[in-house]
Amino acid sequence: MKLLGVRIFRVSKGMVELSVSNRPALRQQDGFVHAGILATLLDSAGGYATLSLLPPGSRVLAVEFKINFTRPAVGDAVHARGRVRKLGRTIAVCELEAKIRQNGKWKSCAWGSQTVYCIKPTDANESPAIIARTSAQP
Amino acid sequence: MKLLGVRIFRVSKGMVELSVSNRPALRQQDGFVHAGILATLLDSAGGYATLSLLPPGSRVLAVEFKINFTRPAVGDAVHARGRVRKLGRTIAVCELEAKIRQNGKWKSCAWGSQTVYCIKPTDANESPAIIARTSAQP
Amino acid sequence: MKLLGVRIFRVSKGMVELSVSNRPALRQQDGFVHAGILATLLDSAGGYATLSLLPPGSRVLAVEFKINFTRPAVGDAVHARGRVRKLGRTIAVCELEAKIRQNGKWKSCAWGSQTVYCIKPTDANESPAIIARTSAQP
Amino acid sequence: MKLLGVRIFRVSKGMVELSVSNRPALRQQDGFVHAGILATLLDSAGGYATLSLLPPGSRVLAVEFKINFTRPAVGDAVHARGRVRKLGRTIAVCELEAKIRQNGKWKSCAWGSQTVYCIKPTDANESPAIIARTSAQP
Repeated sequence: MKLLGVRIFRVSKGMVELSVSNRPALRQQDGFVHAGILATLLDSAGGYATLSLLPPGSRVLAVEFKINFTRPAVGDAVHARGRVRKLGRTIAVCELEAKIRQNGKWKSCAWGSQTVYCIKPTDANESPAIIARTSAQP
Repeated sequence: MKLLGVRIFRVSKGMVELSVSNRPALRQQDGFVHAGILATLLDSAGGYATLSLLPPGSRVLAVEFKINFTRPAVGDAVHARGRVRKLGRTIAVCELEAKIRQNGKWKSCAWGSQTVYCIKPTDANESPAIIARTSAQP
Repeated sequence: MKLLGVRIFRVSKGMVELSVSNRPALRQQDGFVHAGILATLLDSAGGYATLSLLPPGSRVLAVEFKINFTRPAVGDAVHARGRVRKLGRTIAVCELEAKIRQNGKWKSCAWGSQTVYCIKPTDANESPAIIARTSAQP
Repeated sequence: MKLLGVRIFRVSKGMVELSVSNRPALRQQDGFVHAGILATLLDSAGGYATLSLLPPGSRVLAVEFKINFTRPAVGDAVHARGRVRKLGRTIAVCELEAKIRQNGKWKSCAWGSQTVYCIKPTDANESPAIIARTSAQP
Protein backbone atom coordinates (compact mmCIF):
# COMPACT_ATOMS: atom_id res chain seq x y z
CA MET A 1 0.00 0.00 0.00
CA LYS A 2 2.87 2.36 0.79
CA LEU A 3 4.46 1.56 -2.56
CA LEU A 4 1.30 2.73 -4.29
CA GLY A 5 0.66 5.75 -2.09
CA VAL A 6 -2.74 4.55 -0.92
CA ARG A 7 -4.88 6.34 1.64
CA ILE A 8 -7.94 5.13 3.51
CA PHE A 9 -10.76 7.33 2.30
CA ARG A 10 -13.75 6.03 4.21
CA VAL A 11 -14.44 3.27 6.75
CA SER A 12 -17.69 1.98 8.14
CA LYS A 13 -18.88 -1.38 9.45
CA GLY A 14 -18.45 -3.76 6.54
CA MET A 15 -17.29 -1.14 4.03
CA VAL A 16 -13.86 0.34 3.32
CA GLU A 17 -12.89 2.74 0.56
CA LEU A 18 -9.26 3.33 -0.41
CA SER A 19 -8.05 6.14 -2.60
CA VAL A 20 -4.95 6.75 -4.66
CA SER A 21 -3.77 9.41 -7.06
CA ASN A 22 -2.94 8.22 -10.56
CA ARG A 23 0.82 8.71 -10.56
CA PRO A 24 2.84 7.92 -13.70
CA ALA A 25 4.33 4.78 -12.13
CA LEU A 26 0.89 3.20 -11.85
CA ARG A 27 0.11 3.70 -15.52
CA GLN A 28 0.62 1.86 -18.72
CA GLN A 29 2.27 3.92 -21.41
CA ASP A 30 -1.18 4.84 -22.67
CA GLY A 31 -2.04 6.42 -19.33
CA PHE A 32 -4.45 3.76 -18.06
CA VAL A 33 -4.16 2.55 -14.50
CA HIS A 34 -2.97 -1.05 -14.70
CA ALA A 35 -5.59 -3.73 -14.00
CA GLY A 36 -3.29 -5.28 -11.44
CA ILE A 37 -3.08 -2.01 -9.51
CA LEU A 38 -6.87 -1.86 -9.43
CA ALA A 39 -6.92 -5.48 -8.25
CA THR A 40 -4.39 -4.69 -5.53
CA LEU A 41 -6.51 -1.84 -4.22
CA LEU A 42 -9.75 -3.81 -4.44
CA ASP A 43 -8.31 -6.88 -2.75
CA SER A 44 -7.09 -4.73 0.13
CA ALA A 45 -10.38 -2.84 0.41
CA GLY A 46 -12.32 -6.12 0.65
CA GLY A 47 -9.91 -7.50 3.23
CA TYR A 48 -10.19 -4.39 5.40
CA ALA A 49 -13.98 -4.34 5.03
CA THR A 50 -14.13 -7.90 6.33
CA LEU A 51 -11.78 -7.10 9.21
CA SER A 52 -14.08 -4.24 10.21
CA LEU A 53 -16.70 -6.85 11.14
CA LEU A 54 -14.42 -9.25 13.01
CA PRO A 55 -13.20 -9.20 16.63
CA PRO A 56 -9.89 -7.42 17.33
CA GLY A 57 -6.88 -9.57 16.55
CA SER A 58 -8.56 -11.36 13.65
CA ARG A 59 -6.80 -11.96 10.35
CA VAL A 60 -8.13 -12.34 6.84
CA LEU A 61 -6.87 -14.24 3.83
CA ALA A 62 -8.05 -13.87 0.24
CA VAL A 63 -9.27 -17.21 -1.09
CA GLU A 64 -9.97 -15.78 -4.54
CA PHE A 65 -11.22 -12.74 -6.38
CA LYS A 66 -12.72 -12.11 -9.79
CA ILE A 67 -12.81 -8.68 -11.38
CA ASN A 68 -14.40 -7.40 -14.58
CA PHE A 69 -12.78 -4.32 -16.09
CA THR A 70 -15.63 -2.27 -17.45
CA ARG A 71 -14.01 0.93 -18.63
CA PRO A 72 -10.50 2.15 -19.44
CA ALA A 73 -9.10 3.51 -16.17
CA VAL A 74 -8.12 6.90 -17.56
CA GLY A 75 -8.25 9.69 -15.00
CA ASP A 76 -6.47 11.39 -12.14
CA ALA A 77 -7.61 9.47 -9.07
CA VAL A 78 -9.00 6.08 -8.11
CA HIS A 79 -11.39 5.01 -5.38
CA ALA A 80 -11.54 1.30 -4.54
CA ARG A 81 -14.40 0.10 -2.38
CA GLY A 82 -14.87 -3.25 -0.67
CA ARG A 83 -18.22 -4.10 0.84
CA VAL A 84 -19.11 -7.29 2.73
CA ARG A 85 -22.22 -8.85 1.21
CA LYS A 86 -22.24 -11.92 3.44
CA LEU A 87 -20.29 -12.78 6.56
CA GLY A 88 -20.30 -16.43 7.55
CA ARG A 89 -18.55 -18.20 10.37
CA THR A 90 -15.33 -18.72 8.43
CA ILE A 91 -15.92 -17.19 5.01
CA ALA A 92 -17.01 -13.76 3.83
CA VAL A 93 -18.02 -12.65 0.35
CA CYS A 94 -17.26 -9.07 -0.65
CA GLU A 95 -18.37 -6.89 -3.53
CA LEU A 96 -15.50 -4.89 -5.04
CA GLU A 97 -15.81 -1.76 -7.15
CA ALA A 98 -13.29 0.80 -8.39
CA LYS A 99 -14.13 4.22 -9.74
CA ILE A 100 -11.90 6.61 -11.64
CA ARG A 101 -12.19 10.40 -11.69
CA GLN A 102 -12.37 11.74 -15.26
CA ASN A 103 -12.69 15.49 -15.56
CA GLY A 104 -14.11 15.69 -12.07
CA LYS A 105 -16.68 12.91 -12.52
CA TRP A 106 -16.38 9.47 -10.89
CA LYS A 107 -16.99 6.54 -13.21
CA SER A 108 -17.04 2.82 -12.42
CA CYS A 109 -14.09 1.07 -14.09
CA ALA A 110 -13.82 -2.31 -12.34
CA TRP A 111 -16.28 -4.49 -10.50
CA GLY A 112 -16.16 -7.94 -8.99
CA SER A 113 -16.32 -10.33 -6.07
CA GLN A 114 -13.96 -11.75 -3.49
CA THR A 115 -14.00 -14.71 -1.12
CA VAL A 116 -12.23 -14.04 2.18
CA TYR A 117 -11.20 -16.56 4.84
CA CYS A 118 -11.56 -15.26 8.39
CA ILE A 119 -9.27 -16.30 11.23
CA LYS A 120 -10.48 -15.12 14.59
CA PRO A 121 -8.16 -14.84 17.58
CA THR A 122 -9.57 -18.01 19.12
CA ASP A 123 -8.68 -19.84 15.93
CA ALA A 124 -5.12 -18.63 16.29
CA ASN A 125 -3.66 -22.09 16.04
CA GLU A 126 -5.30 -22.58 12.68
CA SER A 127 -3.06 -22.47 9.69
CA PRO A 128 -5.28 -23.13 6.73
CA ALA A 129 -3.12 -25.08 4.40
CA ILE A 130 -4.70 -23.87 1.27
CA ILE A 131 -5.69 -20.37 1.75
CA ALA A 132 -3.71 -17.59 0.44
CA ARG A 133 -1.85 -14.89 2.04
CA THR A 134 -2.91 -11.96 4.12
CA SER A 135 -4.79 -9.62 1.87
CA ALA A 136 -5.02 -6.89 4.45
CA GLN A 137 -4.11 -6.23 8.02
CA PRO A 138 -4.61 -3.17 10.11
CA MET B 1 6.17 -3.44 -14.39
CA LYS B 2 9.15 -1.14 -13.81
CA LEU B 3 7.74 -0.19 -10.40
CA LEU B 4 7.78 -3.84 -9.41
CA GLY B 5 11.13 -4.72 -10.97
CA VAL B 6 9.72 -7.36 -13.28
CA ARG B 7 11.73 -9.22 -15.88
CA ILE B 8 10.58 -11.38 -18.77
CA PHE B 9 11.80 -14.85 -17.95
CA ARG B 10 10.57 -16.91 -20.87
CA VAL B 11 8.57 -16.32 -24.05
CA SER B 12 7.15 -18.76 -26.53
CA LYS B 13 4.16 -18.77 -28.85
CA GLY B 14 1.16 -18.43 -26.55
CA MET B 15 3.14 -18.53 -23.30
CA VAL B 16 4.95 -15.83 -21.34
CA GLU B 17 6.60 -16.12 -17.96
CA LEU B 18 7.54 -13.07 -15.89
CA SER B 19 9.80 -13.12 -12.86
CA VAL B 20 10.34 -10.81 -9.94
CA SER B 21 12.39 -10.90 -6.76
CA ASN B 22 10.43 -10.61 -3.54
CA ARG B 23 11.59 -7.19 -2.34
CA PRO B 24 10.31 -5.80 0.97
CA ALA B 25 8.05 -3.27 -0.80
CA LEU B 26 6.03 -6.07 -2.37
CA ARG B 27 5.33 -7.74 0.94
CA GLN B 28 2.79 -7.53 3.66
CA GLN B 29 4.27 -7.10 7.12
CA ASP B 30 4.17 -10.87 7.51
CA GLY B 31 6.43 -11.31 4.51
CA PHE B 32 3.87 -12.64 2.04
CA VAL B 33 3.76 -11.26 -1.47
CA HIS B 34 0.52 -9.28 -1.75
CA ALA B 35 -2.28 -10.94 -3.74
CA GLY B 36 -2.60 -7.81 -5.83
CA ILE B 37 1.04 -7.99 -6.85
CA LEU B 38 0.54 -11.57 -7.95
CA ALA B 39 -2.56 -10.47 -9.88
CA THR B 40 -0.59 -7.65 -11.54
CA LEU B 41 2.09 -10.06 -12.71
CA LEU B 42 -0.41 -12.68 -13.86
CA ASP B 43 -2.57 -10.19 -15.73
CA SER B 44 0.48 -8.93 -17.58
CA ALA B 45 1.74 -12.42 -18.35
CA GLY B 46 -1.62 -13.39 -19.85
CA GLY B 47 -1.77 -10.21 -21.90
CA TYR B 48 1.72 -10.74 -23.30
CA ALA B 49 0.99 -14.41 -24.01
CA THR B 50 -2.03 -13.39 -26.07
CA LEU B 51 -0.04 -10.73 -27.91
CA SER B 52 2.53 -13.37 -28.85
CA LEU B 53 -0.14 -14.99 -31.04
CA LEU B 54 -1.47 -11.81 -32.68
CA PRO B 55 -0.19 -9.88 -35.71
CA PRO B 56 2.26 -7.04 -35.04
CA GLY B 57 0.54 -3.86 -33.96
CA SER B 58 -2.25 -5.65 -32.11
CA ARG B 59 -3.42 -4.58 -28.69
CA VAL B 60 -5.01 -6.53 -25.87
CA LEU B 61 -7.42 -5.55 -23.13
CA ALA B 62 -8.28 -7.54 -20.03
CA VAL B 63 -12.01 -8.19 -19.88
CA GLU B 64 -11.77 -9.95 -16.54
CA PHE B 65 -9.64 -12.30 -14.48
CA LYS B 66 -10.28 -14.64 -11.58
CA ILE B 67 -7.52 -15.93 -9.36
CA ASN B 68 -7.48 -18.46 -6.53
CA PHE B 69 -4.70 -18.03 -3.98
CA THR B 70 -3.68 -21.53 -3.06
CA ARG B 71 -0.69 -21.06 -0.79
CA PRO B 72 0.86 -18.26 1.25
CA ALA B 73 3.30 -16.52 -1.09
CA VAL B 74 6.29 -16.75 1.23
CA GLY B 75 9.60 -16.99 -0.56
CA ASP B 76 12.33 -15.08 -2.33
CA ALA B 77 11.19 -14.99 -5.95
CA VAL B 78 8.01 -15.24 -8.00
CA HIS B 79 7.35 -16.62 -11.47
CA ALA B 80 4.06 -15.66 -13.12
CA ARG B 81 3.02 -17.56 -16.23
CA GLY B 82 0.26 -16.80 -18.71
CA ARG B 83 -0.73 -19.41 -21.26
CA VAL B 84 -3.35 -19.05 -23.98
CA ARG B 85 -5.80 -21.93 -23.79
CA LYS B 86 -8.08 -20.70 -26.56
CA LEU B 87 -7.67 -17.96 -29.12
CA GLY B 88 -10.82 -16.85 -30.87
CA ARG B 89 -11.39 -14.14 -33.41
CA THR B 90 -11.86 -11.42 -30.81
CA ILE B 91 -11.50 -13.10 -27.44
CA ALA B 92 -8.77 -15.21 -25.87
CA VAL B 93 -8.89 -17.23 -22.67
CA CYS B 94 -5.65 -17.62 -20.71
CA GLU B 95 -4.60 -19.83 -17.84
CA LEU B 96 -2.63 -17.97 -15.19
CA GLU B 97 -0.32 -19.49 -12.60
CA ALA B 98 2.18 -18.04 -10.15
CA LYS B 99 4.88 -19.98 -8.35
CA ILE B 100 7.00 -18.89 -5.42
CA ARG B 101 10.50 -20.12 -4.59
CA GLN B 102 10.72 -21.44 -1.04
CA ASN B 103 14.13 -22.74 0.02
CA GLY B 104 15.04 -23.32 -3.60
CA LYS B 105 11.84 -25.16 -4.55
CA TRP B 106 9.11 -23.66 -6.74
CA LYS B 107 5.58 -24.03 -5.43
CA SER B 108 2.29 -22.98 -6.99
CA CYS B 109 0.70 -20.15 -4.99
CA ALA B 110 -1.95 -18.66 -7.31
CA TRP B 111 -3.94 -20.03 -10.23
CA GLY B 112 -6.74 -18.72 -12.36
CA SER B 113 -8.20 -17.64 -15.67
CA GLN B 114 -8.38 -14.47 -17.73
CA THR B 115 -10.52 -13.26 -20.61
CA VAL B 116 -8.65 -11.02 -23.05
CA TYR B 117 -10.10 -8.84 -25.80
CA CYS B 118 -7.92 -8.70 -28.93
CA ILE B 119 -7.71 -5.66 -31.17
CA LYS B 120 -5.88 -6.35 -34.39
CA PRO B 121 -4.34 -3.56 -36.47
CA THR B 122 -7.15 -3.82 -39.03
CA ASP B 123 -9.62 -3.25 -36.23
CA ALA B 124 -7.79 -0.08 -35.31
CA ASN B 125 -10.87 2.07 -35.51
CA GLU B 126 -12.58 -0.10 -32.92
CA SER B 127 -12.89 1.36 -29.47
CA PRO B 128 -14.72 -1.22 -27.45
CA ALA B 129 -16.83 0.81 -25.10
CA ILE B 130 -16.83 -1.65 -22.31
CA ILE B 131 -13.60 -3.39 -22.28
CA ALA B 132 -10.97 -2.49 -19.87
CA ARG B 133 -7.65 -1.05 -20.21
CA THR B 134 -4.48 -2.30 -21.77
CA SER B 135 -3.23 -5.12 -19.68
CA ALA B 136 0.03 -5.45 -21.52
CA GLN B 137 1.84 -3.98 -24.46
CA PRO B 138 5.20 -4.79 -25.90
CA MET C 1 -35.86 -23.78 -19.23
CA LYS C 2 -38.82 -26.01 -19.99
CA LEU C 3 -37.05 -28.94 -18.34
CA LEU C 4 -36.77 -26.92 -15.15
CA GLY C 5 -40.25 -25.40 -15.26
CA VAL C 6 -39.00 -21.82 -15.34
CA ARG C 7 -41.25 -18.80 -15.71
CA ILE C 8 -40.36 -15.19 -16.50
CA PHE C 9 -41.29 -13.25 -13.40
CA ARG C 10 -40.34 -9.70 -14.29
CA VAL C 11 -38.80 -7.89 -17.26
CA SER C 12 -37.61 -4.34 -17.61
CA LYS C 13 -34.93 -2.62 -19.67
CA GLY C 14 -31.69 -4.27 -18.61
CA MET C 15 -33.22 -6.49 -15.91
CA VAL C 16 -34.89 -9.90 -16.08
CA GLU C 17 -36.09 -12.05 -13.21
CA LEU C 18 -36.90 -15.73 -13.65
CA SER C 19 -38.74 -17.86 -11.13
CA VAL C 20 -39.02 -21.58 -10.49
CA SER C 21 -40.64 -23.76 -7.86
CA ASN C 22 -38.30 -26.05 -5.95
CA ARG C 23 -39.44 -29.44 -7.25
CA PRO C 24 -37.81 -32.62 -5.94
CA ALA C 25 -35.94 -33.18 -9.22
CA LEU C 26 -34.01 -29.95 -8.72
CA ARG C 27 -32.77 -30.92 -5.28
CA GLN C 28 -29.91 -32.76 -3.78
CA GLN C 29 -30.93 -35.49 -1.37
CA ASP C 30 -30.62 -32.98 1.45
CA GLY C 31 -33.26 -30.77 -0.13
CA PHE C 32 -30.97 -27.98 -1.37
CA VAL C 33 -31.40 -26.62 -4.86
CA HIS C 34 -28.32 -27.72 -6.83
CA ALA C 35 -25.74 -25.02 -7.53
CA GLY C 36 -25.84 -25.89 -11.21
CA ILE C 37 -29.58 -25.26 -11.34
CA LEU C 38 -29.03 -21.84 -9.79
CA ALA C 39 -26.28 -21.21 -12.34
CA THR C 40 -28.56 -22.25 -15.18
CA LEU C 41 -31.26 -19.82 -14.07
CA LEU C 42 -28.79 -17.00 -13.46
CA ASP C 43 -27.02 -17.46 -16.78
CA SER C 44 -30.35 -17.29 -18.61
CA ALA C 45 -31.51 -14.26 -16.61
CA GLY C 46 -28.33 -12.36 -17.48
CA GLY C 47 -28.60 -13.33 -21.15
CA TYR C 48 -32.21 -12.15 -21.36
CA ALA C 49 -31.40 -8.94 -19.49
CA THR C 50 -28.71 -8.16 -22.06
CA LEU C 51 -31.06 -8.96 -24.95
CA SER C 52 -33.58 -6.52 -23.51
CA LEU C 53 -31.13 -3.71 -24.35
CA LEU C 54 -30.18 -4.86 -27.85
CA PRO C 55 -31.93 -4.31 -31.19
CA PRO C 56 -34.43 -6.98 -32.31
CA GLY C 57 -32.75 -9.98 -33.90
CA SER C 58 -29.66 -9.77 -31.71
CA ARG C 59 -28.11 -12.81 -30.09
CA VAL C 60 -26.10 -13.21 -26.92
CA LEU C 61 -23.40 -15.65 -25.91
CA ALA C 62 -22.05 -16.22 -22.41
CA VAL C 63 -18.30 -15.67 -22.34
CA GLU C 64 -18.03 -16.64 -18.68
CA PHE C 65 -19.76 -16.38 -15.34
CA LYS C 66 -18.63 -16.60 -11.73
CA ILE C 67 -21.02 -17.30 -8.90
CA ASN C 68 -20.57 -17.34 -5.13
CA PHE C 69 -23.01 -19.51 -3.21
CA THR C 70 -23.73 -17.60 -0.05
CA ARG C 71 -26.41 -19.64 1.68
CA PRO C 72 -27.82 -23.15 1.46
CA ALA C 73 -30.64 -22.97 -1.10
CA VAL C 74 -33.28 -24.53 1.12
CA GLY C 75 -36.79 -23.29 0.40
CA ASP C 76 -39.80 -23.66 -1.81
CA ALA C 77 -39.14 -21.22 -4.66
CA VAL C 78 -36.25 -19.48 -6.39
CA HIS C 79 -35.97 -16.10 -8.07
CA ALA C 80 -32.98 -15.52 -10.34
CA ARG C 81 -32.25 -11.97 -11.45
CA GLY C 82 -29.87 -10.72 -14.12
CA ARG C 83 -29.10 -7.04 -14.33
CA VAL C 84 -26.85 -5.34 -16.89
CA ARG C 85 -24.26 -3.21 -15.11
CA LYS C 86 -22.43 -2.14 -18.25
CA LEU C 87 -23.30 -2.46 -21.90
CA GLY C 88 -20.45 -1.94 -24.33
CA ARG C 89 -20.34 -2.19 -28.07
CA THR C 90 -19.69 -5.93 -28.09
CA ILE C 91 -19.53 -6.98 -24.46
CA ALA C 92 -21.93 -6.61 -21.55
CA VAL C 93 -21.30 -7.28 -17.86
CA CYS C 94 -24.25 -8.47 -15.77
CA GLU C 95 -24.80 -8.83 -12.06
CA LEU C 96 -26.50 -12.09 -11.14
CA GLU C 97 -28.38 -12.82 -7.92
CA ALA C 98 -30.62 -15.68 -6.81
CA LYS C 99 -32.96 -15.61 -3.84
CA ILE C 100 -34.74 -18.49 -2.18
CA ARG C 101 -38.03 -18.32 -0.30
CA GLN C 102 -37.72 -19.76 3.20
CA ASN C 103 -40.90 -19.68 5.28
CA GLY C 104 -42.25 -16.86 3.17
CA LYS C 105 -39.09 -14.71 3.30
CA TRP C 106 -36.76 -14.19 0.35
CA LYS C 107 -33.06 -14.62 1.11
CA SER C 108 -30.06 -14.18 -1.17
CA CYS C 109 -28.38 -17.53 -1.83
CA ALA C 110 -26.13 -16.93 -4.86
CA TRP C 111 -24.47 -13.86 -6.29
CA GLY C 112 -22.05 -13.25 -9.10
CA SER C 113 -21.07 -11.74 -12.42
CA GLN C 114 -21.31 -12.67 -16.08
CA THR C 115 -19.62 -11.51 -19.26
CA VAL C 116 -21.90 -11.60 -22.31
CA TYR C 117 -20.92 -11.28 -25.96
CA CYS C 118 -23.47 -9.39 -28.05
CA ILE C 119 -24.12 -10.13 -31.72
CA LYS C 120 -26.31 -7.55 -33.35
CA PRO C 121 -28.22 -8.29 -36.57
CA THR C 122 -25.75 -6.25 -38.63
CA ASP C 123 -22.97 -8.45 -37.28
CA ALA C 124 -24.82 -11.51 -38.53
CA ASN C 125 -21.87 -12.76 -40.48
CA GLU C 126 -19.77 -12.85 -37.35
CA SER C 127 -19.06 -16.24 -35.89
CA PRO C 128 -16.85 -15.59 -32.91
CA ALA C 129 -14.62 -18.59 -32.79
CA ILE C 130 -14.16 -18.63 -29.10
CA ILE C 131 -17.28 -17.50 -27.53
CA ALA C 132 -19.60 -19.94 -26.05
CA ARG C 133 -23.01 -21.00 -26.81
CA THR C 134 -26.29 -19.16 -26.73
CA SER C 135 -27.09 -18.50 -23.13
CA ALA C 136 -30.53 -17.19 -23.87
CA GLN C 137 -32.73 -16.38 -26.81
CA PRO C 138 -36.19 -14.92 -26.93
CA MET D 1 -28.06 -35.72 -11.91
CA LYS D 2 -30.90 -38.13 -12.54
CA LEU D 3 -32.89 -35.36 -14.24
CA LEU D 4 -30.04 -34.88 -16.69
CA GLY D 5 -29.26 -38.56 -17.22
CA VAL D 6 -25.68 -38.29 -16.00
CA ARG D 7 -23.34 -41.24 -15.59
CA ILE D 8 -20.02 -41.46 -13.81
CA PHE D 9 -17.49 -42.12 -16.53
CA ARG D 10 -14.21 -42.30 -14.63
CA VAL D 11 -13.05 -41.95 -11.02
CA SER D 12 -9.60 -41.77 -9.55
CA LYS D 13 -8.07 -40.13 -6.49
CA GLY D 14 -8.77 -36.43 -6.94
CA MET D 15 -10.38 -36.72 -10.39
CA VAL D 16 -13.92 -37.50 -11.47
CA GLU D 17 -15.37 -37.46 -14.97
CA LEU D 18 -19.10 -37.42 -15.61
CA SER D 19 -20.72 -38.07 -18.96
CA VAL D 20 -24.09 -37.27 -20.46
CA SER D 21 -25.69 -37.68 -23.87
CA ASN D 22 -26.91 -34.49 -25.50
CA ARG D 23 -30.66 -35.02 -25.35
CA PRO D 24 -33.02 -32.41 -26.85
CA ALA D 25 -34.14 -31.24 -23.38
CA LEU D 26 -30.60 -30.10 -22.58
CA ARG D 27 -30.32 -27.94 -25.67
CA GLN D 28 -31.14 -24.46 -26.68
CA GLN D 29 -33.22 -24.25 -29.83
CA ASP D 30 -30.00 -23.92 -31.82
CA GLY D 31 -28.81 -27.29 -30.56
CA PHE D 32 -26.13 -26.07 -28.14
CA VAL D 33 -25.91 -27.58 -24.70
CA HIS D 34 -26.95 -24.86 -22.26
CA ALA D 35 -24.14 -23.23 -20.26
CA GLY D 36 -26.00 -23.94 -17.06
CA ILE D 37 -26.13 -27.65 -17.84
CA LEU D 38 -22.37 -27.63 -18.36
CA ALA D 39 -21.99 -25.76 -15.07
CA THR D 40 -24.19 -28.30 -13.29
CA LEU D 41 -22.07 -31.18 -14.54
CA LEU D 42 -18.79 -29.42 -13.79
CA ASP D 43 -19.84 -28.38 -10.29
CA SER D 44 -20.79 -31.96 -9.49
CA ALA D 45 -17.59 -33.36 -10.99
CA GLY D 46 -15.48 -31.02 -8.85
CA GLY D 47 -17.46 -31.87 -5.72
CA TYR D 48 -17.05 -35.61 -6.29
CA ALA D 49 -13.36 -35.20 -7.08
CA THR D 50 -12.86 -33.46 -3.76
CA LEU D 51 -14.84 -36.11 -1.89
CA SER D 52 -12.59 -38.77 -3.40
CA LEU D 53 -9.74 -37.35 -1.29
CA LEU D 54 -11.64 -36.95 1.98
CA PRO D 55 -12.38 -39.48 4.73
CA PRO D 56 -15.65 -41.42 4.47
CA GLY D 57 -18.62 -39.46 5.75
CA SER D 58 -17.25 -36.11 4.61
CA ARG D 59 -19.39 -33.54 2.86
CA VAL D 60 -18.51 -30.83 0.39
CA LEU D 61 -20.04 -27.47 -0.35
CA ALA D 62 -19.35 -25.26 -3.36
CA VAL D 63 -18.14 -21.85 -2.24
CA GLU D 64 -17.99 -20.52 -5.81
CA PHE D 65 -17.12 -21.46 -9.35
CA LYS D 66 -16.12 -19.55 -12.46
CA ILE D 67 -16.40 -20.99 -15.93
CA ASN D 68 -15.30 -19.71 -19.32
CA PHE D 69 -17.25 -21.04 -22.30
CA THR D 70 -14.70 -21.48 -25.02
CA ARG D 71 -16.60 -23.13 -27.84
CA PRO D 72 -20.23 -23.65 -28.83
CA ALA D 73 -21.29 -26.92 -27.19
CA VAL D 74 -22.60 -28.54 -30.35
CA GLY D 75 -22.27 -32.31 -30.39
CA ASP D 76 -23.77 -35.56 -29.24
CA ALA D 77 -22.15 -36.18 -25.84
CA VAL D 78 -20.48 -34.26 -23.03
CA HIS D 79 -17.71 -35.20 -20.63
CA ALA D 80 -17.28 -33.04 -17.54
CA ARG D 81 -14.11 -33.45 -15.52
CA GLY D 82 -13.26 -32.12 -12.07
CA ARG D 83 -9.71 -32.34 -10.82
CA VAL D 84 -8.41 -31.22 -7.42
CA ARG D 85 -5.45 -28.90 -7.85
CA LYS D 86 -4.98 -28.15 -4.18
CA LEU D 87 -6.47 -29.70 -1.09
CA GLY D 88 -6.14 -27.69 2.10
CA ARG D 89 -7.41 -28.36 5.57
CA THR D 90 -10.81 -26.83 4.92
CA ILE D 91 -10.77 -25.61 1.34
CA ALA D 92 -10.04 -27.30 -1.97
CA VAL D 93 -9.53 -25.72 -5.39
CA CYS D 94 -10.59 -27.73 -8.44
CA GLU D 95 -10.00 -27.34 -12.14
CA LEU D 96 -13.11 -27.94 -14.22
CA GLU D 97 -13.24 -28.80 -17.90
CA ALA D 98 -16.01 -29.97 -20.21
CA LYS D 99 -15.53 -31.53 -23.62
CA ILE D 100 -18.09 -32.12 -26.33
CA ARG D 101 -17.99 -34.85 -28.97
CA GLN D 102 -18.32 -33.43 -32.47
CA ASN D 103 -18.23 -35.98 -35.29
CA GLY D 104 -16.40 -38.41 -33.05
CA LYS D 105 -13.77 -35.93 -31.81
CA TRP D 106 -13.69 -34.52 -28.27
CA LYS D 107 -13.23 -30.75 -28.04
CA SER D 108 -12.91 -28.55 -24.98
CA CYS D 109 -15.95 -26.28 -24.65
CA ALA D 110 -15.84 -24.99 -21.06
CA TRP D 111 -13.05 -24.50 -18.56
CA GLY D 112 -12.81 -22.99 -15.12
CA SER D 113 -12.15 -23.19 -11.41
CA GLN D 114 -14.11 -24.01 -8.27
CA THR D 115 -13.60 -23.42 -4.56
CA VAL D 116 -14.96 -26.23 -2.38
CA TYR D 117 -15.50 -26.21 1.37
CA CYS D 118 -14.77 -29.55 3.03
CA ILE D 119 -16.61 -30.80 6.10
CA LYS D 120 -15.02 -33.87 7.59
CA PRO D 121 -16.94 -36.21 9.89
CA THR D 122 -15.17 -34.82 12.96
CA ASP D 123 -16.34 -31.36 11.98
CA ALA D 124 -19.91 -32.62 11.93
CA ASN D 125 -21.13 -29.94 14.28
CA GLU D 126 -19.90 -27.27 11.92
CA SER D 127 -22.56 -25.48 9.97
CA PRO D 128 -20.72 -22.88 7.96
CA ALA D 129 -23.14 -20.03 7.82
CA ILE D 130 -22.05 -18.73 4.53
CA ILE D 131 -21.12 -21.58 2.41
CA ALA D 132 -23.40 -22.82 -0.17
CA ARG D 133 -25.21 -25.97 -0.59
CA THR D 134 -24.05 -29.48 -1.17
CA SER D 135 -22.61 -29.60 -4.62
CA ALA D 136 -22.21 -33.35 -4.60
CA GLN D 137 -22.65 -36.27 -2.31
CA PRO D 138 -22.06 -39.93 -2.90
